[in-house]
Amino acid sequence: MHYENVVDLKVTQVDQSRIDQVDFDNLMFGKTCSDHMMICDYEDGEWKTPEIIPYGPMLMEPSAKVFHYGQAVFEGMKSYKDGDGKVWLFRPQQNFERINTSAKRMAIPEFPKEYFFSALEKLLNLDYEWIKPGIGNSLYLRPFVIATENGVSASPSNKYRFMIITAPAKAYYEGSVKVIFAEEYSRSADGGVGFAKAAGNYGAQFYPTNLAKAEGFDQIIWTDADTHEYLEEAGTMNIFFRIGDSLVTAPTNDRILDGVTRKSIIALAEEKGIDVQVRRVSVKEIKDAARAGELKEIFGAGTAAVVVPVSAFRHGGEDFELPQLENSYAKQLKANLLDIQYNRAEDPFGWRYEVEIEK
Amino acid sequence: MHYENVVDLKVTQVDQSRIDQVDFDNLMFGKTCSDHMMICDYEDGEWKTPEIIPYGPMLMEPSAKVFHYGQAVFEGMKSYKDGDGKVWLFRPQQNFERINTSAKRMAIPEFPKEYFFSALEKLLNLDYEWIKPGIGNSLYLRPFVIATENGVSASPSNKYRFMIITAPAKAYYEGSVKVIFAEEYSRSADGGVGFAKAAGNYGAQFYPTNLAKAEGFDQIIWTDADTHEYLEEAGTMNIFFRIGDSLVTAPTNDRILDGVTRKSIIALAEEKGIDVQVRRVSVKEIKDAARAGELKEIFGAGTAAVVVPVSAFRHGGEDFELPQLENSYAKQLKANLLDIQYNRAEDPFGWRYEVEIEK
Repeated sequence: MHYENVVDLKVTQVDQSRIDQVDFDNLMFGKTCSDHMMICDYEDGEWKTPEIIPYGPMLMEPSAKVFHYGQAVFEGMKSYKDGDGKVWLFRPQQNFERINTSAKRMAIPEFPKEYFFSALEKLLNLDYEWIKPGIGNSLYLRPFVIATENGVSASPSNKYRFMIITAPAKAYYEGSVKVIFAEEYSRSADGGVGFAKAAGNYGAQFYPTNLAKAEGFDQIIWTDADTHEYLEEAGTMNIFFRIGDSLVTAPTNDRILDGVTRKSIIALAEEKGIDVQVRRVSVKEIKDAARAGELKEIFGAGTAAVVVPVSAFRHGGEDFELPQLENSYAKQLKANLLDIQYNRAEDPFGWRYEVEIEK
Repeated sequence: MHYENVVDLKVTQVDQSRIDQVDFDNLMFGKTCSDHMMICDYEDGEWKTPEIIPYGPMLMEPSAKVFHYGQAVFEGMKSYKDGDGKVWLFRPQQNFERINTSAKRMAIPEFPKEYFFSALEKLLNLDYEWIKPGIGNSLYLRPFVIATENGVSASPSNKYRFMIITAPAKAYYEGSVKVIFAEEYSRSADGGVGFAKAAGNYGAQFYPTNLAKAEGFDQIIWTDADTHEYLEEAGTMNIFFRIGDSLVTAPTNDRILDGVTRKSIIALAEEKGIDVQVRRVSVKEIKDAARAGELKEIFGAGTAAVVVPVSAFRHGGEDFELPQLENSYAKQLKANLLDIQYNRAEDPFGWRYEVEIEK
């Protein structure tokens, strides 16, 4: 599936690519940006024509509202190269719709679809060499919007900047992770912005996550702020629980991000005939299932992380270990997902989006 | 009270002040910055020596973490000039402590006290002419910290920038405001970051506030996210209710900002012999009191707004008008507060801080 309505953008290419300076075998996630980026300003009530320019620092007013009021949203996407050198996106329409959902909640004007897809197509053409083939390799795409109007009064900005930067990536998490179920801290409130990819949702998790890390854990699985009895999401991943042979995950609501990987995993599992239950899942149920030997797997699912098994969790001072199964749902579903993403299998869902490469 | 331990900072002054271009009678709050700003970078585990430089745009990496993860906190303070040309701050130690409290919750390293006070002293000396005398006039001070490390992975930054920018201000709100008590949207969760002046707390309020504005209201008074039954704060102000002759305000907790103006109003009211009750206050209590004619006043209190009377509120489809009293608590307490801030009255609490002006 191509996007039909690609518009011409103003393009300024780099004189000299930086690609030769990059060690593609030792990439830190999100640290090295590719040669080009998209930049598009909103002023006087409209988005101006996007431009593609060399990646690099930009001038910002210290009083720009993004620094003071966190009016900022983002998306995470990946582009994949198959064995024939074709380039693919995965359900990009979902990311486009979600960044505008996030933007609306943060009082940011919606971005035009034709600009979004035209910029992606052009960036991936220009930085084609930065997309390395091979499972696990990708060019990570980071669309984001920031409030750029100057002025330290707490009101919505009249100026915004939409950008897309890209960074070559290998798998985000290797192996498995150990998690703590949140008992004190919270990620978001009912009626808040948890469902949005709003910048402040992420920074707010760093301190509790540091406390978890000091105890030897990698991440927190957030629970509902009211009671801390129900498991919600992991901040950069949605969470799945395999109880017996059923796969359980929390329904999305205004606290939980509607993850693209989450909904794809649900669809893949259902297609395989797995009993998928989208329902509230309590800490008690999971601990009881673990004690009874019924809890077979926990895994996270997200664009950056793809699918990551949880090897252990802590709650209420109790530690639980999870067996690492030979033929786990996590492994099977990850393999199915990657096969579709990298054009190695049929795509019965129509999820793949082929980027038209001009050269 | 002076801060004793002022250190020498590196100072680069403007060649030519912009002050002549400023219309001090028609200032938009926070829109025009004064000539100088403080900038201080955190790298390699330490805050470098702060510098004072001309206010102006700065280069930022598009992948800087502040844009993506909202790792940013701020403070709001004012400096006042009295009739003798002396310059005063109001309880600056409170702001210093609170920005570090906010910073800790957002996994940002604490800033040294001697840098904070030295920068304030130097800025107010350099931009002395930007502080206009007269009640209501001030030079607003905006200390803030942003995460500057590049890299779009959701983890705490290793680099930060602490800045202080300043902007001449007249009173923030004129007259009174009409408010809606929140029934659907929320500002913060238990266990979240509501008590911190974290950037994302503010951007998250813009959309619900826009909805309120579309109905003819100015602000939202936030209620607890769990039940929406208890009144908390107004986002940029804490809220006081006068029921009969008692003054009631919600206790601070991890959802409510510990406002400097709030605690000063409480102290001033107690000194005047007013019965002050710091306790949970329900929507029902306020509506019942309004119906019984017992609700005399509602007002907000914050650094930017000082004290602002509420003239009307809406909840559950019901509208309530508040009488505008001749000798209201809001008017009395605001006058008492301004008299202390502008050095026009005794300061029994030791709240004023005199800035040593060198010239």
